[in-house]
Amino acid sequence: MSAQGAILELVAELPLIDHHCHGVQTGTPADAEVELLATESDWPAPPGTSVFDNPFGITVRSVCAPLLDLPRHCTGEEYLQRRDELGGTEVSARLLASSGTERYLLDTGFRAGTIMTPDEMATLTGAATEEIVRLEALAESIAPGCTAAGFAGAFDDALEAAAANAVGVKSIIAYRYGLDFDPSPPEPAQVTAAADRWLTAIAAGAPTRLADPVLLRHLLWRAVELRRPIQLHVGYGDPDIVLHRCDPSHLTSFAHATRTSGAQLMLLHCYPYIRQAGVLAQLFPHVWLDTSCAVSHSGPSSQTLVRESLEMAPMHKVLYASDAFGLPELYACGSWLWRRAVGRVLGEWLADDLIGAADARRYAEMLARGNAVRAYGLE
Amino acid sequence: MSAQGAILELVAELPLIDHHCHGVQTGTPADAEVELLATESDWPAPPGTSVFDNPFGITVRSVCAPLLDLPRHCTGEEYLQRRDELGGTEVSARLLASSGTERYLLDTGFRAGTIMTPDEMATLTGAATEEIVRLEALAESIAPGCTAAGFAGAFDDALEAAAANAVGVKSIIAYRYGLDFDPSPPEPAQVTAAADRWLTAIAAGAPTRLADPVLLRHLLWRAVELRRPIQLHVGYGDPDIVLHRCDPSHLTSFAHATRTSGAQLMLLHCYPYIRQAGVLAQLFPHVWLDTSCAVSHSGPSSQTLVRESLEMAPMHKVLYASDAFGLPELYACGSWLWRRAVGRVLGEWLADDLIGAADARRYAEMLARGNAVRAYGLE
Amino acid sequence: MSAQGAILELVAELPLIDHHCHGVQTGTPADAEVELLATESDWPAPPGTSVFDNPFGITVRSVCAPLLDLPRHCTGEEYLQRRDELGGTEVSARLLASSGTERYLLDTGFRAGTIMTPDEMATLTGAATEEIVRLEALAESIAPGCTAAGFAGAFDDALEAAAANAVGVKSIIAYRYGLDFDPSPPEPAQVTAAADRWLTAIAAGAPTRLADPVLLRHLLWRAVELRRPIQLHVGYGDPDIVLHRCDPSHLTSFAHATRTSGAQLMLLHCYPYIRQAGVLAQLFPHVWLDTSCAVSHSGPSSQTLVRESLEMAPMHKVLYASDAFGLPELYACGSWLWRRAVGRVLGEWLADDLIGAADARRYAEMLARGNAVRAYGLE
Repeated sequence: MSAQGAILELVAELPLIDHHCHGVQTGTPADAEVELLATESDWPAPPGTSVFDNPFGITVRSVCAPLLDLPRHCTGEEYLQRRDELGGTEVSARLLASSGTERYLLDTGFRAGTIMTPDEMATLTGAATEEIVRLEALAESIAPGCTAAGFAGAFDDALEAAAANAVGVKSIIAYRYGLDFDPSPPEPAQVTAAADRWLTAIAAGAPTRLADPVLLRHLLWRAVELRRPIQLHVGYGDPDIVLHRCDPSHLTSFAHATRTSGAQLMLLHCYPYIRQAGVLAQLFPHVWLDTSCAVSHSGPSSQTLVRESLEMAPMHKVLYASDAFGLPELYACGSWLWRRAVGRVLGEWLADDLIGAADARRYAEMLARGNAVRAYGLE
Repeated sequence: MSAQGAILELVAELPLIDHHCHGVQTGTPADAEVELLATESDWPAPPGTSVFDNPFGITVRSVCAPLLDLPRHCTGEEYLQRRDELGGTEVSARLLASSGTERYLLDTGFRAGTIMTPDEMATLTGAATEEIVRLEALAESIAPGCTAAGFAGAFDDALEAAAANAVGVKSIIAYRYGLDFDPSPPEPAQVTAAADRWLTAIAAGAPTRLADPVLLRHLLWRAVELRRPIQLHVGYGDPDIVLHRCDPSHLTSFAHATRTSGAQLMLLHCYPYIRQAGVLAQLFPHVWLDTSCAVSHSGPSSQTLVRESLEMAPMHKVLYASDAFGLPELYACGSWLWRRAVGRVLGEWLADDLIGAADARRYAEMLARGNAVRAYGLE
Repeated sequence: MSAQGAILELVAELPLIDHHCHGVQTGTPADAEVELLATESDWPAPPGTSVFDNPFGITVRSVCAPLLDLPRHCTGEEYLQRRDELGGTEVSARLLASSGTERYLLDTGFRAGTIMTPDEMATLTGAATEEIVRLEALAESIAPGCTAAGFAGAFDDALEAAAANAVGVKSIIAYRYGLDFDPSPPEPAQVTAAADRWLTAIAAGAPTRLADPVLLRHLLWRAVELRRPIQLHVGYGDPDIVLHRCDPSHLTSFAHATRTSGAQLMLLHCYPYIRQAGVLAQLFPHVWLDTSCAVSHSGPSSQTLVRESLEMAPMHKVLYASDAFGLPELYACGSWLWRRAVGRVLGEWLADDLIGAADARRYAEMLARGNAVRAYGLE
């Protein structure tokens, strides 16, 4: 077998650590729910069109169909019908098994009631699971019982308790404000004043959703104190995002300010700012990146994205993640597409004799799991 | 024949709907005029250089030369000489015929006196033609007869009349201000005050060119009311553009505000923000994109751009356009390069078995014309 | 031999003009110094990782190892040990000779004491050398002896003297402020006031580092008056950079303001804004670009970057540079990677019959040296 063929095969079989994902859904979802989970859009496909003609939908019909005993390239209708026949548990079991994931790091802070807990995921898949604490969800969970003056202390207590069972935290300040936030930590008096505004609004009937930039920054800086990996949403996501405000180069000053803190900045998704993220990962010892959900949602074109993630970043700073939420197809396609892309990129480098076979194997293992082990202190 | 060969052949022959272009020039232009039309620059190539060494000029010497009975890769001088020999009408007839365009949607609002009208284009090419109304040109055409108080009503009347014979409108707010405009509709009093400033300046001798952001927004919001496709210049264009202010992610709030309006947002060109446009096209049911003039002007490298337009966007949201203006080579090269790129991308997906042959044919047809039919309600 | 093979061979042998680089280091550096020079980061690789797993480090182990009599893909430790054995002078001589550079244009304004002067470089390599004057370093060198009122005149004198022995100047306003500077020249009174602030601060013990935007703009505008090439740092660089503020589209108004000045704007590096730079190079007769250090630091993936630099820019506006500083591996890899990339891109265009063999040779020569000769008036 050629060296390229060998690395493709190796990457196809490597156990993965999925360093950023969510639980798979429980039960058997309705077709419309499947279709909504298959896109980052918040709305159904327009009349006369189908989500199965999105890059991700195309991949599902190609990669997942055979796992459900269907021919490749079946129609979306056929796929949904077979899904219903098998039922959600069987579909999840088959598709998650196909992903070859040995460990899931689960962000438990989004729509937790509708998806599996880490324990349920461990039972379904037989893989190890770890928890990632979402900062904003944690703050929202304690808000109802807080006074403004007590908020900061209550959050510290809650974070300490939650972090005891977790390997890292996640911030969605990109969604709630943007990455163009003031990089300095807010003063305690500012935090109290902001908490007062927020809690007063909640008491007056406003939704609990935390979007105050002072509080968002406070949460992030409290997380820095934990000296753990902090996952940061970057770039592509649902329609709440204003993309150019999620360019990670807005994080440059924050990266300077946290460089020696012991915290690690894990840039998630990053599309279309993968190159900016790669530059930061080269420059700053504590910055890492993945391409996660952008891989699934670019489907046939995803190798371009993975290739970009390896343009400037050191090989020891790029990680695998599916960012799957709910739909088991996202774990299956995320893994399949990423393995294909990494295998091909390393294969091209081998063909160009820019790396040797031993380095190719070593890099494959680092990208698939070794870098996550180092970042999160696993094992 | 391989599946890849078959799809290349199919795409090479498919009739196209060119959903955004302008009329071809009338008469036989001077060499210097040809050279200026062959670039988005406003100035001649520097001494010692030639526009025929631009990516588009390279493509002309390769793709158009044989259509004018010249050898491929002739020199620019040889090309211009042969062009003169044949005369403008013959050159236009040959090159436009080569494009295989079945229908042109013509933006008639730029330098209308020097290029063909939709009727003239229909006569020359035998293709169907439709009109796209340029909002700013329409406002400028009625300005001389307006009072400030009467402007809004006069514009509504003019738009209604123009739209009756058109399939969509176009906004060049990207050129005149930027896409970072206030996404809300201006208040009527603001419109009147802005019209007063504009008309007063015109009366004092200022050029009619409309660049007031309040009026630009007003025009755009009046167009939303038409519930038709609105073409928006995005990204790459002539030197009036400040590129980073034409990033379509600046349109995120406007896309939210117009999502259920019935209007469609057609993002034109998009280079180098093709990925940002693709994300918006996935997220928002009423957002579409093309790569049009960026394809012609990137010539040999254009398949990279077309590939990017298919990274994140649903297959039912990407359209063909040449954005050709004046020079018949722009229609010929735009079509030839786009067909090559789409054929290759679909061929790669086939080779990877991520789509089957039936999907490949279906997607080719959607991209070439089906999506334009659905967007504009043609046929 | 195929046309593609022939162009690869031709480009592999062409003499290069390195239009932007620095001197190679003197003496034999310690291992830790080599490792720091091998990245744009300011800090060592994190524990358990190695700079030899960065894209550039991978390239060094592949491309430079055989030049030091080591097997390809040796380890970083083996490489450093062999480097020490040979000593800095021998390593520099071998690696610089491998680059095939016929002429170096040396920016002498950064850490001048630790690297070779143009004369020393000429002696080491046998190549011609020219000087590029760094504006900010020049201003900082005269600051100690200036009064605020005398600064502008003293700078003019110093610039005139320095320019007499130089072929161009360089601005690092991207580092010291950003490319989003006010594009107009400051008024003399503003310059004097800014000089007063700066000199007063220096007198009070502040570092001499010039970061005042008024003075940075003044320097740049004085350089415009020279009617020479002005090299501008754009995009990727060390951690001082805030990447999105170094997008060259911020230079659009400055490009308009200087279009007919006689000065040339040479956009350096440009990553990840290579496309934006290419657009400006197409639109403005006096804008040029390279990909220099981004090529070395993207190593195995660098052909993507070179391909992008040729997407929109005319073939007569793209230049070769290594941007090497200190480490001889940067000259060697920069040249090797760039030759490989240009040879492949032209080879693809040949394979697509979009250029003929004569154009391929002509373009290779333009990119390798002809464009630099024209830009800088060499020979």
